[in-house]
Amino acid sequence: MTIVQVGSSLVEIAGKTRAAASKLAILSTEAKNQAIAAIAQALESSQEEILQANVADCQAAAAEGIAKPLYKRLQLDEHKLRDAIAGVRDVGKLADPVGKVQIHRELDTGLILKRITCPLGVLGIIFEARPEAAIQIVSLAIKSGNGVILKCGKEAVRSCEAIVKAIKQGLSQTAVSPDAVQLLTTREETLELLKLDKYVDLIIPRGSNSFVRFVQENTRIPVLGHADGICHAYIDQAADINKAVEITVDAKAQYAAVCNAIETLLVHQSIAAEFLPKVAAALAVSNVELKGDKRTLAILPDIAAATETDWETEYSDLILSIKIVDSLEDAIAHINQYGSRHTDVIVTEDIATAEAFFGLVNSAGVFHNCSTRFADGFRYGFGAEVGVSTQQMPPRGPVGLEGLVTYKYQMTGNGHIVASYTGANAKAFIHRDL
Amino acid sequence: MTIVQVGSSLVEIAGKTRAAASKLAILSTEAKNQAIAAIAQALESSQEEILQANVADCQAAAAEGIAKPLYKRLQLDEHKLRDAIAGVRDVGKLADPVGKVQIHRELDTGLILKRITCPLGVLGIIFEARPEAAIQIVSLAIKSGNGVILKCGKEAVRSCEAIVKAIKQGLSQTAVSPDAVQLLTTREETLELLKLDKYVDLIIPRGSNSFVRFVQENTRIPVLGHADGICHAYIDQAADINKAVEITVDAKAQYAAVCNAIETLLVHQSIAAEFLPKVAAALAVSNVELKGDKRTLAILPDIAAATETDWETEYSDLILSIKIVDSLEDAIAHINQYGSRHTDVIVTEDIATAEAFFGLVNSAGVFHNCSTRFADGFRYGFGAEVGVSTQQMPPRGPVGLEGLVTYKYQMTGNGHIVASYTGANAKAFIHRDL
Repeated sequence: MTIVQVGSSLVEIAGKTRAAASKLAILSTEAKNQAIAAIAQALESSQEEILQANVADCQAAAAEGIAKPLYKRLQLDEHKLRDAIAGVRDVGKLADPVGKVQIHRELDTGLILKRITCPLGVLGIIFEARPEAAIQIVSLAIKSGNGVILKCGKEAVRSCEAIVKAIKQGLSQTAVSPDAVQLLTTREETLELLKLDKYVDLIIPRGSNSFVRFVQENTRIPVLGHADGICHAYIDQAADINKAVEITVDAKAQYAAVCNAIETLLVHQSIAAEFLPKVAAALAVSNVELKGDKRTLAILPDIAAATETDWETEYSDLILSIKIVDSLEDAIAHINQYGSRHTDVIVTEDIATAEAFFGLVNSAGVFHNCSTRFADGFRYGFGAEVGVSTQQMPPRGPVGLEGLVTYKYQMTGNGHIVASYTGANAKAFIHRDL
Repeated sequence: MTIVQVGSSLVEIAGKTRAAASKLAILSTEAKNQAIAAIAQALESSQEEILQANVADCQAAAAEGIAKPLYKRLQLDEHKLRDAIAGVRDVGKLADPVGKVQIHRELDTGLILKRITCPLGVLGIIFEARPEAAIQIVSLAIKSGNGVILKCGKEAVRSCEAIVKAIKQGLSQTAVSPDAVQLLTTREETLELLKLDKYVDLIIPRGSNSFVRFVQENTRIPVLGHADGICHAYIDQAADINKAVEITVDAKAQYAAVCNAIETLLVHQSIAAEFLPKVAAALAVSNVELKGDKRTLAILPDIAAATETDWETEYSDLILSIKIVDSLEDAIAHINQYGSRHTDVIVTEDIATAEAFFGLVNSAGVFHNCSTRFADGFRYGFGAEVGVSTQQMPPRGPVGLEGLVTYKYQMTGNGHIVASYTGANAKAFIHRDL
């Protein structure tokens, strides 16, 4: 682990953010929504400045010979910006995740326990090229009552500075202090940010798998995210072949670069001879490159051989590894061994088999007869997605605004003491939910 | 970080536990309750053997000159064992935390999303002297559908071996494999256990603060627990003095060794001259040693001076530090700076002040006019407590059985693919809760 001396300036920034977040945490839904509306307004007013800053970022990136996909993500045109601002207004319309009463219980007469959701405090968000990510993240942070320290990739510094300047300007006329939103721009600050466990309550890294893994291994702050998305489709012996082909093509080729696309196709041996040629033909239309285990090669002799490494590789590309399995149990064992606990699907017409798959596959998403690509906060109806977690503990899977809040136990008494409830004449608790 | 070569034997044990846990995870509530009943029965049948093993442990400990409090915790008499077995039967009566439907939503016709609670997998529990802890932990693990690897302190090895032998014997006649419960007994195995992040989903350390901190810093497995319990009582200017005295005495002296006892008393300057002599007299009855800041010493000249170190010390003993503050804000700032986010109480008759305290104190428990000692899973009505977490992310505070489960998203379709919901003729989602 790299040891970094945390600079006093970043500690100061983090302290300011925490102080602002502490006030933001107890604002009403209305006050937060006003702040979100003001942000949208300010971004609109600063459109020219933001787009010009982005042009400068893009020119500098082009001069440095940036890769084309990265350049595309960096580019912010009028259309993208308008969508991002509309997204801010959408966040305003989402239900407030703060202040929800999860438990309301009378422990004894006059002794009332409530468990109520509250903001986490300060979020640290590290993202790469896409400048509009800053816009979405800030609106979600404000809505959930959290302060936010953003760290953008170096390519997007001018764009993000213009965006954050506009956001702070918008906030300056609201109940939310502009200090609640901060922008860091240097690589050194990323390392410092990861050390600030006294100031930052959650880190959300958005970037490559290796970057997310680096963050997970270099901070004591909880991390929301996933390093890998190794998803599987298992085509059962009782599969409807047409559904199996359509789901496989969608799950692999509809958008191959994302974490909920499949990397490995598991096929029951009794259906392989019929299914594999059909799915191979359908995947060929989308230019998917196939790799197969020995038994697959016996059916599809023209494809490359898959090695052990393939089962643990997230291609994030139009490549699919294929393995023939003897049973549901073998498919499940493969998924639990090589998968990343993200999302896995079984295609079968046998409900009992699907139920067994649901019970025994140890992933955040277990699907039956539909594409893994549905594993997404927006598609789940969360209105927003702050990340996808492949950890075992909640929150896992696609995480909406609820991932940005925690809860407190609030207890109100009237001089109640524990001594009254212990010993020979101990009073009994009522434990009645209100 | 110490690097330990994980021995194949422990990996083998962990693999067996995971396999057994995987079957346990999908058992019905009834099957799990039958297993719990069988455990209680087997422990009763093995009472003599267990008590004899404990006598041997106690004799060995006495011969080694073990400290008296530790000896008392180690000792397991007929009465304690009967209580522990009754506790097992109580766990049988608790609601099953597994299989609860948290979300049930129609995304589109025939595309149904459910979020359902499920077991975490395998728990690693490291505890010290109390052998009956093994009994409680195993029953909670089985109830929540989890396998469990226990590691007991070296003093309790004979007792725990006898207990786990009885438990495995009880399970052998049920749907739960005896492999679901394992016992480790050596210190080296503790270090190995912490490396098994592929096999163990949650570590619960029960022991000293320094031990819990060691565990937190030496594993990538999530840890449920708390290193410190630095709780505060703040006596506001609008406090009822009698309530304030009673609550302070209860929160400090009713049971000083526990994490929910207070370590620091904060007193508003306008009430200090009246309150402090009264509370000092009441605390003297319970032999509480006081330490005060300068202004406190002006009122209570006979007590020792408190230093900066006192504000960050968990005495776990009949010692209380006292500080006079100028305002609610100062009290809150002190708590947020020095506290451990466990439980803090305000004593005041002013509801608005209490509300501000609830909103701004950043702890798992924020109490008003009642003792911090109520912060406990049983008193909250959870039926069982698996630990107290002072982390910011859920689960926090006293954690019941719900801390031993996570959830899965189960989606069922009929050939649904994402391509239908994108592009020019995109279908819209319904997002209707069922």
